[in-house]
Amino acid sequence: MPNPDALIETHAPLLAQARDAARSRTYFAAFAESPSTRIWGEAAPTDGRAAFDDLLHQTFPIQTPGAHGLIAPEVPPYGMPLDISYPHLHADGVDELVSAAKHAMPAWRDAGPELRTAIGIEILTRINARSFEFAHAVMHTTGQAFVMAFQAGGAHAHERGLEAIAYAYDAMMQVPASVTWEKARGKGEPQRVAKTYTIVPRGVALVIGCSTFPTWNSYPGLFASLVTGNPVIVKPHPHAVLPLAMTVGVARDVLIEYGFDPNLIALAVDGAGETLASNLATHPDVRVIDYTGSTSYGEWLEANALQARVFTEKAGVNCVVLDSTDDLKGMAANLAYSLSLYSGQMCTTPQTIFIPRAGIDTDTGHATVADIVSAVGTALDDLLGDPARAVNMLGAIVNDAVLHRLDDASNAGDVLIKSRAIEHPEFPAARVRTPLVVRADADATAYNHECFGPIAFVVETEDTAHSLDAWRRIVSASGSLTASVYSTDDDVLAAAHNIALDTGVSMSSNLTADTYVNQTVAFSDYHGTGANAAANATLTDLAFVADRFRIVETRRPQ
Amino acid sequence: MPNPDALIETHAPLLAQARDAARSRTYFAAFAESPSTRIWGEAAPTDGRAAFDDLLHQTFPIQTPGAHGLIAPEVPPYGMPLDISYPHLHADGVDELVSAAKHAMPAWRDAGPELRTAIGIEILTRINARSFEFAHAVMHTTGQAFVMAFQAGGAHAHERGLEAIAYAYDAMMQVPASVTWEKARGKGEPQRVAKTYTIVPRGVALVIGCSTFPTWNSYPGLFASLVTGNPVIVKPHPHAVLPLAMTVGVARDVLIEYGFDPNLIALAVDGAGETLASNLATHPDVRVIDYTGSTSYGEWLEANALQARVFTEKAGVNCVVLDSTDDLKGMAANLAYSLSLYSGQMCTTPQTIFIPRAGIDTDTGHATVADIVSAVGTALDDLLGDPARAVNMLGAIVNDAVLHRLDDASNAGDVLIKSRAIEHPEFPAARVRTPLVVRADADATAYNHECFGPIAFVVETEDTAHSLDAWRRIVSASGSLTASVYSTDDDVLAAAHNIALDTGVSMSSNLTADTYVNQTVAFSDYHGTGANAAANATLTDLAFVADRFRIVETRRPQ
Repeated sequence: MPNPDALIETHAPLLAQARDAARSRTYFAAFAESPSTRIWGEAAPTDGRAAFDDLLHQTFPIQTPGAHGLIAPEVPPYGMPLDISYPHLHADGVDELVSAAKHAMPAWRDAGPELRTAIGIEILTRINARSFEFAHAVMHTTGQAFVMAFQAGGAHAHERGLEAIAYAYDAMMQVPASVTWEKARGKGEPQRVAKTYTIVPRGVALVIGCSTFPTWNSYPGLFASLVTGNPVIVKPHPHAVLPLAMTVGVARDVLIEYGFDPNLIALAVDGAGETLASNLATHPDVRVIDYTGSTSYGEWLEANALQARVFTEKAGVNCVVLDSTDDLKGMAANLAYSLSLYSGQMCTTPQTIFIPRAGIDTDTGHATVADIVSAVGTALDDLLGDPARAVNMLGAIVNDAVLHRLDDASNAGDVLIKSRAIEHPEFPAARVRTPLVVRADADATAYNHECFGPIAFVVETEDTAHSLDAWRRIVSASGSLTASVYSTDDDVLAAAHNIALDTGVSMSSNLTADTYVNQTVAFSDYHGTGANAAANATLTDLAFVADRFRIVETRRPQ
Repeated sequence: MPNPDALIETHAPLLAQARDAARSRTYFAAFAESPSTRIWGEAAPTDGRAAFDDLLHQTFPIQTPGAHGLIAPEVPPYGMPLDISYPHLHADGVDELVSAAKHAMPAWRDAGPELRTAIGIEILTRINARSFEFAHAVMHTTGQAFVMAFQAGGAHAHERGLEAIAYAYDAMMQVPASVTWEKARGKGEPQRVAKTYTIVPRGVALVIGCSTFPTWNSYPGLFASLVTGNPVIVKPHPHAVLPLAMTVGVARDVLIEYGFDPNLIALAVDGAGETLASNLATHPDVRVIDYTGSTSYGEWLEANALQARVFTEKAGVNCVVLDSTDDLKGMAANLAYSLSLYSGQMCTTPQTIFIPRAGIDTDTGHATVADIVSAVGTALDDLLGDPARAVNMLGAIVNDAVLHRLDDASNAGDVLIKSRAIEHPEFPAARVRTPLVVRADADATAYNHECFGPIAFVVETEDTAHSLDAWRRIVSASGSLTASVYSTDDDVLAAAHNIALDTGVSMSSNLTADTYVNQTVAFSDYHGTGANAAANATLTDLAFVADRFRIVETRRPQ
């Protein structure tokens, strides 16, 4: 067995850097985000592809206690069948799985925070070493383009995992393992009590993955739960199993190597329409749940999994308020990028754009609503004119529901910018679509709820005050993960800042270059605030980690 | 208006000490626990009593938005009528009160963590300066003896409040107010983004007090919520209003002095049998709830106040496992003290004592169960033989329900040590009772649920292994706040330690002198673990404070 102390020592420098970065919130990256062969070596892309290919049309090599039979539930967005089978967990196997996880818990608790943390980092670094293989897995389950799958599904997910580990370690380290407490008595020897404080897990943790960001959205909860001592059951979305199956596989290998029960992490796969997530979520021994997905199911979990601490990221309506700009072209290009990236299939993509009816002041003079739409249209053409480049930006539509929603919006709305279909040069079966922009009335409800996919609404308002008010009402009612404001007026920016604080939404202002409202950076940007209906938690803050473990004190007089 | 910066500076040293103590968990006390006139001055006892007397038979001077009419719901355990009226809040006034609290929120949020924290400490120190007056208020609402009311209701409550403030401040301070994030680009200027991170409150906080420890159990949540930016509505138990009314009064005065809306803290009083707590707890704008009381109502809150983060301390069954001791007399004296203090009306009082049927080894030879009971009986006589001294230990029975429970147990059980009535020298109407010890069968259910009051059960088991197993089952099923084990055998202590970790209960071992299982010390001992059914939170850890605020980020490129 490899030496646990050596592992702790190996990862100590990275852990220290990550902790510092999480506190300072300045730039830090532990992992390379570029798939360049200068970083990874000439063979890496081919080797990664070959490793991925080896997984296809096979039974995925993993054991899940309680599972019986196999299931291959994935529906590939690029039309390339994965045809990978996984152990199928049914409702009747939940007790056995949870029981296996519980059985593994005491030894993991007794391993202590240092070793658990080092093992968490070891798992992440081994996953990172297989970034190309993972990128293909993310691409062909989510529809992300390859480079995005490599970045958002790879390095950026690993950063988010490491960030969560750093936070969890920090929180655990704030509790000393033991002290001798000493209080002076009036006379004689002081009163002395020897005390120990042990970090104990809450119980079995459940991570419920989503179909669009199986790694990025799952890693924070997964690693935070694991290093704080909780066994983790990973329940992927049926359409995006592979990246999480690979994750669980790596983690189980590392756990076995260091002498732990591999059932400290397990894969729980079911098919679309089955109820496994609910069966697991309401099991009395499941005590932590991380969930990303629909508002309705997130709220169901919050109301029904009362035995667990439930962290949810749900849907929201992200707004853009245009008041004025000193860089119309930059603003249009920035918006076009945010609307296009992964076909708007990000929970952070802007959806509802408020523009005063009379238009706005810009560096090139007054711009009417039509001028602004035209500038965004031009920027979209620049970005997406070349199909080969366009598909690298857009990726593929993740499922039929998004496609139908897009078609419905195209037919129903007052279309300002049409959505175009693009043929994917490599994967002709992939559904690739450019963003649709439609006009909505200020009093319409169309733009008030999340309309997931490449669909944006332009809403004409009386003036900026009206825009701000409409924005405030949407965030208060529906929640948002992001907001974007463009203004050259400090008073408007101050008013917007206040609305952001009141409604609890992250706000970016005057993004005109290469910072995009739909992207957050680990160690510096928080993802979600937990302060509005879009999420009850943040990636990552202390509140996201501090309640995943408890402290048990024992004391004896000395 | 006094200078806010000066206030921050004034309290900075105490805050720094409190933060250090919370991290080191070694001995620290900010406030004097003794009512000695050498500390407080000759006039303090008389002045405090006079100030208390001035409150009697009056309308308490406080405004509560939404209240109409007055109510005087207190039932004095010493028989000394308080006859104090408070604004009566009915269900129809809840909206107005919550709305007033919300209205006060933005300015309090914008005051920032430093000033909010300093104001929290200022409130505590002003309360502490009135310790004698508060001690009478606690005594005559809860039945605690005067010295206990001075300590547990005074200095120790203030320490718990300060501890919570220190934790909350620490958690808020881990987030920088702003940074410039800078990432190298391949060529040219780095990418620069200016970011701000603002601590924002969750919303309106509700503190639901209990009848036995109105200050000690309320202060951690109250001060943690307040300094993290949440307006606080304090809903006392109808029988223990005064100490919290005085608390709210002091806090409102300080807030007004520093230019804030006094409705950042408000008193919400109703009568026994009214539903105010539930009306408040389910209001959509109430987002944090701290509760101490019955398991059934705590669970109701957890299941019904889904819009809020709910911290509950409920009931539990605290066990004692006797295996062996090298100080039988010390053990018996220590147990006698813990059973007697405040007539066992503490959530931390031991209730169920497991003893092997064959007895245990002691420093004076083998002791049978009868020998042990006899030693405890002798210790109780020593402690409570003198009525004047006894009432200072026992205090008064808090309400009729406890008295009836005690009578029922006396009549139904196999009594080992009888409960005696003692006449209070000063307050003849006070119901003073010594602890009852009854025998219960190992397979009986009598000792499995909390039997609040001066009632303990001796359960004879097959052997220590059986005792440990029974203890484990009780904590797992019913939860416990404390556990106590006596053994001279390291293997038994190690096994007990494991049970404590597995079931998530704080454990003390071999207490034979002046450390008592039912007492915890702020800054060093955690009260409750949140890891079993007796409580879902701890006083105080990071998890208790970190989720009372959220972080809102704004960013703009530079």
